[in-house]
Amino acid sequence: MPTFTVLGAGAMGTALCKPFIDAGWEVRLWGTWLDDHLIDAIEAGQPHPRIKVAAAPGIRTFRSGQLAEALEGADVVDIAVTSEGLPRVTEMALDHIAGLRALCLTAKGFWTDPEGRIRLLPDAIRAIADQKGVSLPPLVAVGGPVKANECAAGEVTATTYASRDLALAETLAREAATDTYGIRPSDDETGVELCAALKNVYAISLGIADGLGEATGVPRHNLKAAAFAQAIREMSLLVAAVGGHSETPYGLAGVGDLEVTGLSGRNKLYGVRLGKGETPDGALAEMNRLEQTVEGYPAAPLAVAFAHQAGADEGTLPLLHAVARILQGGVDDVYAAVAAAVKPARP
Amino acid sequence: MPTFTVLGAGAMGTALCKPFIDAGWEVRLWGTWLDDHLIDAIEAGQPHPRIKVAAAPGIRTFRSGQLAEALEGADVVDIAVTSEGLPRVTEMALDHIAGLRALCLTAKGFWTDPEGRIRLLPDAIRAIADQKGVSLPPLVAVGGPVKANECAAGEVTATTYASRDLALAETLAREAATDTYGIRPSDDETGVELCAALKNVYAISLGIADGLGEATGVPRHNLKAAAFAQAIREMSLLVAAVGGHSETPYGLAGVGDLEVTGLSGRNKLYGVRLGKGETPDGALAEMNRLEQTVEGYPAAPLAVAFAHQAGADEGTLPLLHAVARILQGGVDDVYAAVAAAVKPARP
Ligand SMILES: NC(=O)c1ccc[n+]([C@@H]2O[C@H](COP(=O)([O-])OP(=O)(O)OC[C@H]3O[C@@H](n4cnc5c(N)ncnc54)[C@H](O)[C@@H]3O)[C@@H](O)[C@H]2O)c1
Ligand SMILES: NC(=O)c1ccc[n+]([C@@H]2O[C@H](COP(=O)([O-])OP(=O)(O)OC[C@H]3O[C@@H](n4cnc5c(N)ncnc54)[C@H](O)[C@@H]3O)[C@@H](O)[C@H]2O)c1
Repeated sequence: MPTFTVLGAGAMGTALCKPFIDAGWEVRLWGTWLDDHLIDAIEAGQPHPRIKVAAAPGIRTFRSGQLAEALEGADVVDIAVTSEGLPRVTEMALDHIAGLRALCLTAKGFWTDPEGRIRLLPDAIRAIADQKGVSLPPLVAVGGPVKANECAAGEVTATTYASRDLALAETLAREAATDTYGIRPSDDETGVELCAALKNVYAISLGIADGLGEATGVPRHNLKAAAFAQAIREMSLLVAAVGGHSETPYGLAGVGDLEVTGLSGRNKLYGVRLGKGETPDGALAEMNRLEQTVEGYPAAPLAVAFAHQAGADEGTLPLLHAVARILQGGVDDVYAAVAAAVKPARP
Repeated sequence: MPTFTVLGAGAMGTALCKPFIDAGWEVRLWGTWLDDHLIDAIEAGQPHPRIKVAAAPGIRTFRSGQLAEALEGADVVDIAVTSEGLPRVTEMALDHIAGLRALCLTAKGFWTDPEGRIRLLPDAIRAIADQKGVSLPPLVAVGGPVKANECAAGEVTATTYASRDLALAETLAREAATDTYGIRPSDDETGVELCAALKNVYAISLGIADGLGEATGVPRHNLKAAAFAQAIREMSLLVAAVGGHSETPYGLAGVGDLEVTGLSGRNKLYGVRLGKGETPDGALAEMNRLEQTVEGYPAAPLAVAFAHQAGADEGTLPLLHAVARILQGGVDDVYAAVAAAVKPARP
């Protein structure tokens, strides 16, 4: 029975335990120093406070002081903390990962390296390992349309595991798949990571279209659909510009994940507020008051800087830039700004 | 001032007049023998009964007996009737189209040729013209995410015009674009037509996911997103199998149109009923009672037959086949059937 250790007992970390339990793995869940109340609930068999679903029976839980035990002898580890938490947790974990077959990554977002360059999270892990002189197992980017509460409840979920070591991704996909959890292997780590980091920004534009419709009583479905297609187009161009496969955004990692993010989620709800006329800062304050983090808000300027590094400017990525400008408060008419970015230019 | 004549005063035909009026064309709208009440409303300046939006001021209307006058001296003609109406209307129109620069096609769906083969609508037009010995102007497939009521109201809309004569599509895109109506030219007539014909079938699967969620109170967003990505994947494979570009479904014609169709629309509402447990025939009867045509219902077996002709079977197109089987009444557990079709297989 191989052992799977998840680092981070938040929504996604806890959810990911479910298919691995179902697939017959030994599953360990380590909570960070911020997660004691979550571990308490799991150990008491109560619904996980974030997803309102009980964690899968059979998970072995570990507190923040027990990282070494949680990692001892693990075959596969998944890092499921937020992008802010990733560097510290990686640093701590790297002391205990000798013999790992794979290091999976559920955390998503951008990382600013010491030189101020914007990078994807696998590069953060590689840089930290380099600095510590630790040699890494192959990394596996976990992406695609996965809402944690549904995954935790065993509802049907399709995901993608991407690794530069395609054979490893295929093996894991075989070993971790269940009747309700399907995994498409991919060799495009960069594409899967970048789609996931970008989708929260683009989801804000989908929310804006919804909000414009709610505010006026006249749906803006043509606008939302045009924004959706434009988002996928831009993801594809940017993925290709940084060496990923231009097709990756057309599958689960892009189209699938943007669809799920546009159906619900905090980034889309934040966009709805903007579409209804709230200011970017006012809407953000209100979301924060409701304890709803809007990952797309800080991600937008990072995404623009990341694209700039890759030589992709506003002409190539008009929707990304439009959203970033809206969030900066530099746009009076959000309808016009999104429309201009998604309407095909006169040829 | 070039002249644009639309054949069919239904929702889409009337809506399409709006951007052409805005772009400064002379616009004529011909109603079929089924459209007199629609023409009445337009002439009286009342909201169009189907879209609840008034037709753009300045349209010249023509009754079914005035087809020759409507077509006299037209530069571009668009056929905007249903797929059932297309053969008859095409036959009538072909007597009056000498000198046309382009024949546009808003009608979407499949056509069964005299030998019983399933074809796309441009092939119907070509066959009818052949038989009549009329030489055709270049055809232009009009596709993408266009809800008629929004287009008619001048809301921002992105569409694609596809012609084997790409220069013509580009010219039209330049001449008909407005501040709110953007046109992406394409040379993939087949891809654009096929995406449009398939999307109503796939939209039923999106509705099923929504209905399953409504029935249980637990959203099935992971399933819906997986179905969305799988639909695009299958469209791409089938488009390529019949000589179109595999990328066409990744843009406005596929991703965009499926998004708009999954947001609302009768096919998706029909799917919601199935997801909630209604039988295919019972749900259809109820929709028909409410005068809501479900284009995806008759399209599903045609799409399967079309795919079969192209050598694409259930292994390649599992979701298309799952929907077709559900509509035939051959499926007890729609959740399991859709799930099996959209979950990546164990590699
Ligand atoms: N790949 C996927 O399918 C998928 C799906 C959803 C979310 N995600 C990603 O997973 C990550 C976690 O999302 P979630 O919804 O579980 O969030 P969450 O808030 O429920 O959990 C956050 C986790 O990160 C830890 N954390 C937060 N701040 C930290 C810090 N400063 N230092 C150390 N640890 C910290 C918490 O202790 C907790 O374990 C995010 O990056 C998110 O984008 C991935
Ligand atoms: N390309 C796009 O962007 C787009 C968008 C929406 C709809 N459509 C397509 O446009 C077509 C029309 O859709 P709609 O929403 O306007 O429908 P509608 O029901 O409002 O109008 C139907 C039109 O077809 C005519 N018609 C119906 N049955 C006929 C028959 N048997 N013989 C002759 N004429 C007949 C009607 O008289 C009317 O003019 C459909 O094929 C639809 O799929 C295309």
